[in-house]
Amino acid sequence: MKKDTLNKLFIHELKDILCAEEQICKALPECIKASQSVGLKEALKNHLEESNIQVQRLEQIFSLLGISERSESCEAMTSLINECIETINNYEKSALRDAALIAKLQRIEHYEISVYGTLRTFAKILDLEDIVELLKETLDEELAADRKLTKIAEGGLLTTGVNQQANR
Amino acid sequence: MKKDTLNKLFIHELKDILCAEEQICKALPECIKASQSVGLKEALKNHLEESNIQVQRLEQIFSLLGISERSESCEAMTSLINECIETINNYEKSALRDAALIAKLQRIEHYEISVYGTLRTFAKILDLEDIVELLKETLDEELAADRKLTKIAEGGLLTTGVNQQANR
Repeated sequence: MKKDTLNKLFIHELKDILCAEEQICKALPECIKASQSVGLKEALKNHLEESNIQVQRLEQIFSLLGISERSESCEAMTSLINECIETINNYEKSALRDAALIAKLQRIEHYEISVYGTLRTFAKILDLEDIVELLKETLDEELAADRKLTKIAEGGLLTTGVNQQANR
Repeated sequence: MKKDTLNKLFIHELKDILCAEEQICKALPECIKASQSVGLKEALKNHLEESNIQVQRLEQIFSLLGISERSESCEAMTSLINECIETINNYEKSALRDAALIAKLQRIEHYEISVYGTLRTFAKILDLEDIVELLKETLDEELAADRKLTKIAEGGLLTTGVNQQANR
């Protein structure tokens, strides 16, 4: 019976992140439109494509588990996205809005990093090897997306970061 | 004028995380009480002490900036904490509740990791060296707290992780 319940917790968390991903897919086009930096726009477009694939991966996982998936509510992601939209409304299109938006988007990335990390660990314990691999793919993409946002904010040897532009 | 506005964004984010930390300090005692694992209880007690020090560090930063600090609302952290409390209410005291609770607490840690990372980057751009150091201290503590929770969940060579206990 206990085995069932860790399994139930795993499924509950899968539904939570499916709901989160679906909300992200809906919100990203507005964030892309609101960005000034070409690099940020590109990174978000790329992440929108990735997020759509991540939703498909979750559907694949539900199918492997024999579950007719349905997403639950995920209050925390709703709040994180609300803060993104609020940020867009509070600033005109500028490097400063980009800097503020990246701050909010990285909270979203970190939420996902945390959840996929947990899910992968649960899947290992439950001996669901194929699912571990699928979750790892997504986790790696989320980690890379977060690093990319940091790079856009901080800049590099050849590029001026959004934060520096916001401080001019 | 733009300099002012990156500065304003920095202060806004500082107020956000102060509000978040204050909420965490209020919620952690309930999480400690709800945990079954001695290791988890200890880690959370330790993190409560750290969080109180982190609030003091934020107050020190506000003082260095000459701001009579006041926290703002931080909707996202309220939601993240609500999900913790919901988890406590949904499970009896058990390894399974610990596993579910760690999943929620790591989302909180990741929120903080993300915000302190952003704040440190902003402080660098604003040439606030003393404040960069204070923020780095807290960021390192948050990263360590998150790793500690992973270790409690996954276990090690000599200890059985909470996740494995939850699956017995």
